[in-house]
Amino acid sequence: MALDATASGVFPIAPTPFHPDGRLDEASLGTLIDGYLKAGSTGVTVLGIMGEAPKLEPEESIAIAKHFVKGFGKLPVIVGVSAPGFAAMRALSRTVMENGAAGVMIAPVPSLRTDDQITGYYRQAIEAIGADIPFVIQDYPLTLSVQMTPKVIRQIVQENPSCVMLKHEDWPGLEKISTLRAFQAEGSLRPISILTGNGGLFLDFEMERGADGAMTGYAFPDMLVELVKLQKAGKRDEAHDLFDAHLPLLRYEQQQGVGLAVRKYVMMKRGFLASDAQRKPGSALSAKAREEIDYMLHRLQRAVT
Amino acid sequence: MALDATASGVFPIAPTPFHPDGRLDEASLGTLIDGYLKAGSTGVTVLGIMGEAPKLEPEESIAIAKHFVKGFGKLPVIVGVSAPGFAAMRALSRTVMENGAAGVMIAPVPSLRTDDQITGYYRQAIEAIGADIPFVIQDYPLTLSVQMTPKVIRQIVQENPSCVMLKHEDWPGLEKISTLRAFQAEGSLRPISILTGNGGLFLDFEMERGADGAMTGYAFPDMLVELVKLQKAGKRDEAHDLFDAHLPLLRYEQQQGVGLAVRKYVMMKRGFLASDAQRKPGSALSAKAREEIDYMLHRLQRAVT
Amino acid sequence: MALDATASGVFPIAPTPFHPDGRLDEASLGTLIDGYLKAGSTGVTVLGIMGEAPKLEPEESIAIAKHFVKGFGKLPVIVGVSAPGFAAMRALSRTVMENGAAGVMIAPVPSLRTDDQITGYYRQAIEAIGADIPFVIQDYPLTLSVQMTPKVIRQIVQENPSCVMLKHEDWPGLEKISTLRAFQAEGSLRPISILTGNGGLFLDFEMERGADGAMTGYAFPDMLVELVKLQKAGKRDEAHDLFDAHLPLLRYEQQQGVGLAVRKYVMMKRGFLASDAQRKPGSALSAKAREEIDYMLHRLQRAVT
Amino acid sequence: MALDATASGVFPIAPTPFHPDGRLDEASLGTLIDGYLKAGSTGVTVLGIMGEAPKLEPEESIAIAKHFVKGFGKLPVIVGVSAPGFAAMRALSRTVMENGAAGVMIAPVPSLRTDDQITGYYRQAIEAIGADIPFVIQDYPLTLSVQMTPKVIRQIVQENPSCVMLKHEDWPGLEKISTLRAFQAEGSLRPISILTGNGGLFLDFEMERGADGAMTGYAFPDMLVELVKLQKAGKRDEAHDLFDAHLPLLRYEQQQGVGLAVRKYVMMKRGFLASDAQRKPGSALSAKAREEIDYMLHRLQRAVT
Repeated sequence: MALDATASGVFPIAPTPFHPDGRLDEASLGTLIDGYLKAGSTGVTVLGIMGEAPKLEPEESIAIAKHFVKGFGKLPVIVGVSAPGFAAMRALSRTVMENGAAGVMIAPVPSLRTDDQITGYYRQAIEAIGADIPFVIQDYPLTLSVQMTPKVIRQIVQENPSCVMLKHEDWPGLEKISTLRAFQAEGSLRPISILTGNGGLFLDFEMERGADGAMTGYAFPDMLVELVKLQKAGKRDEAHDLFDAHLPLLRYEQQQGVGLAVRKYVMMKRGFLASDAQRKPGSALSAKAREEIDYMLHRLQRAVT
Repeated sequence: MALDATASGVFPIAPTPFHPDGRLDEASLGTLIDGYLKAGSTGVTVLGIMGEAPKLEPEESIAIAKHFVKGFGKLPVIVGVSAPGFAAMRALSRTVMENGAAGVMIAPVPSLRTDDQITGYYRQAIEAIGADIPFVIQDYPLTLSVQMTPKVIRQIVQENPSCVMLKHEDWPGLEKISTLRAFQAEGSLRPISILTGNGGLFLDFEMERGADGAMTGYAFPDMLVELVKLQKAGKRDEAHDLFDAHLPLLRYEQQQGVGLAVRKYVMMKRGFLASDAQRKPGSALSAKAREEIDYMLHRLQRAVT
Repeated sequence: MALDATASGVFPIAPTPFHPDGRLDEASLGTLIDGYLKAGSTGVTVLGIMGEAPKLEPEESIAIAKHFVKGFGKLPVIVGVSAPGFAAMRALSRTVMENGAAGVMIAPVPSLRTDDQITGYYRQAIEAIGADIPFVIQDYPLTLSVQMTPKVIRQIVQENPSCVMLKHEDWPGLEKISTLRAFQAEGSLRPISILTGNGGLFLDFEMERGADGAMTGYAFPDMLVELVKLQKAGKRDEAHDLFDAHLPLLRYEQQQGVGLAVRKYVMMKRGFLASDAQRKPGSALSAKAREEIDYMLHRLQRAVT
Repeated sequence: MALDATASGVFPIAPTPFHPDGRLDEASLGTLIDGYLKAGSTGVTVLGIMGEAPKLEPEESIAIAKHFVKGFGKLPVIVGVSAPGFAAMRALSRTVMENGAAGVMIAPVPSLRTDDQITGYYRQAIEAIGADIPFVIQDYPLTLSVQMTPKVIRQIVQENPSCVMLKHEDWPGLEKISTLRAFQAEGSLRPISILTGNGGLFLDFEMERGADGAMTGYAFPDMLVELVKLQKAGKRDEAHDLFDAHLPLLRYEQQQGVGLAVRKYVMMKRGFLASDAQRKPGSALSAKAREEIDYMLHRLQRAVT
């Protein structure tokens, strides 16, 4: 199923499961997919930064994408295809689309600075992969050091009809959502889907600003799904009650460098993964950190039941 | 009163009050000081990054420091003296110490990269200001791009007897506190005070890792004081209950670029400041952002009463 | 004399002379000014990055500016007024203009990224200092990390009638000069003066691309003056012969971090300064480096006589 | 032939030849190898940054390495294996060594900051690829933002017996070479080969500081070979005469972003490559830039004959 601008709900950013010795854990891929489907995800994104994509062999990347496509059936699978060269980007994009992916996600290369450089990069990238593949703009300045204004995003969308979604991960970024939706309202921007990242740390208000849902890997995708539903139903207080109960852990997971270790640990405890191992180079949790997470999980359980 | 390594509790990072036209608001300086004292602060830090120090005239900086010294009486006032040149750093340091400051805080210049460059910088800085002035290391990689390992911090402390405190603002930084306290336990580091920043976003666990308190400007210094007390008394659950109630707002205040606008708005609503104006160039809140803050304040009030 | 868009020739970036103990060397200020005038400079720029401006006390900065204004008489003196806050920028700008400066130079703050942030910054800065002060845009991405496209420069020029000059220090930057001159030719940009920096490393070709002259501190301002004359007279081969003889030393002076030490050492040997001391923190030359410079000076002397 | 610490002379950084449509130009690979051998190279380095390595498909990378190994016969071929993950680094390293490479070159990942992070990274990398593969440290702060002090380089060398060479590309970097050779003289560092990069811009003095030769892609490898010989023979004046004649072009080639376009254009004119095309995304030369290069080549020819 091709991705289009009406996409909404929750697209988890899937981690890649490894065995403690660094091998890909194919069995856990199945468990992970089941978990995401059971949680009510409306799609999934694979081979992103949090998926340890740069550490994968090319054939592993494709195998993982295939697993998810098969598991998700008619639900859309987005594949991260960011690469330093357009040849590799094109090759991966064509391959995953032929294998059933719904669209691709493209982050700008970190060296881009000026507005013209950024819009030029997307023009060239789309020329390379082909204008027939639906794509997602990944806007993630904290990690990529590339800053896109709402006007730049609008220009990319207007110049490239195959752009269907913004993965919004600017921080702070609430005003950016409001500005983009105002562009739509005044007719200067065609409708696109906006899913938000940042580990969900501002999802409570992002929904109120006009986001269509979340694209992030927080270890409780079921909470993200529920929150998006509550906000869409206009149940503001209930949405914030749910969100606030998760905020201590959400915040803890949002630590650059160790965040993935926290996330995998919680997903292991919740049965999504058999192991919390990362492929090297990776980070590990201290015993004290694990105790802190356990404490927060305990408090969370008490709060939501 | 000279600052020493036993300092603990809460040292708010004071914002600088301005009139809407950009003039210094001296009357609000008095209100602010009263508010901090009433909240139970054990000291205060002025002329930091959040105090809009780079926008002040030299004579304004000194006037502000004097106000705080007078208002805080026997309680210690720390003055930020970071500067591109050692001549200016020395001049400001000597002046504020002569006027009753308890110590100074020094951040590394952003160009420093290697361990030797960092330790060398602090050696030169202390040679410049004089070894008789108690000083605080400001460790704030997110903004300054300078990364100090625990070993580098230890070396600075051991080489400079006038170093009495670390303002810890690494993110993530919990393991750094544990490592420094382990250095102390094994005898390779003399005791120093560790107060933590990051807007308080991890203060709940930082206290459990061995911090002595907080040095941050969160708009509820009274909560910070209470949290530090609860943690020191070993009341873990009560401490987290209090902290979690504030976390939605704490998190909202921790947005790079607009954080100070959020903080000043809340402090204005709470009566600490007459206006939330910033001296130019500054940032402003949208109507929607103010509504969001009001909503969180309303929820907070309900939660803690 | 007010600076205007017809400025051309050579405006040296003046270093600040210090005694070995760090005090300002006022006597050398006189020698330096004489040297620049004798070399045929058409103006001068003071309090730039290479002038160690951030290490000066405010009163020293103003004293230095006054010295140059007095010494240069009717020739224009440009003063660097870049500052983190607009209040300080305004204060310094008004003071130096009242004391006879011809214009001011403003660099963007390093945090600016997007086109809108950059043009907005200049709008606010000019609003702060007043639209009656002729100003120079400093475009120096290597040090400031701010990248301005030709379109952004054009927008700043068109929006601010008091903009009269671009200090061009992009690297690589030849195409930028060609593009800006093409904008002028097609009528989309009003005429401005373009003086180039980068230590003169590309001055040979920058003149051929349309620069009006140089604004840089290379230790042989007399060569810069001669080169600009030769290029304006269309004597391409002679210009390159002269330039190439200096290139080994020019290149050596263009080393980030030690460049100023090289420059001051050569200027001391040439009688422009009594000492090559820098105010702390500064860099020093090894004995081997001094021998290398002496060797290049010896070869240069042989080549040009 | 395995690379060892006695390596010296000139190891060109080979560009990757492409057809104008972006396909690998295998015929030009042969011409290029012949040209390097005829120029007197003592080895070669492939798949470096200037070789557009990140834009190659994995199978292309290996094919290129094989071509060079076959062409260079008993002369050593070094292969760049830098990668975000150790699995990919290991796979490429093992494959190219099995196919006859003499050693591998490893750059640090750009996120490394502290001394411990850097030395830890090399420990982990060598653990991953195996301690039996001779490796080269690539020290290139301008592009990679990782700063290694001489002490850090010494630690990497001492901890990893398979380290045989430093590709020195710090800028400024003359003192670093002197310091490392002083470490050797005092016995705290075992002998290693030091080849220098930076496009050769300081090769004249780097040889005098103790470098063993050059590893850079300047379009006249024959000049680099001759220069290294002259310096080793102690013919200082002749060495500088030769170097200075090339310096205008060397300097022109050292422009970040367009440098590779300049280099490929000159190599095409000299018969090393059939086309100066880059695989996308790449940069192109304007007609004016080509005229400038032609002019410099004309002057160079006149100077050296």
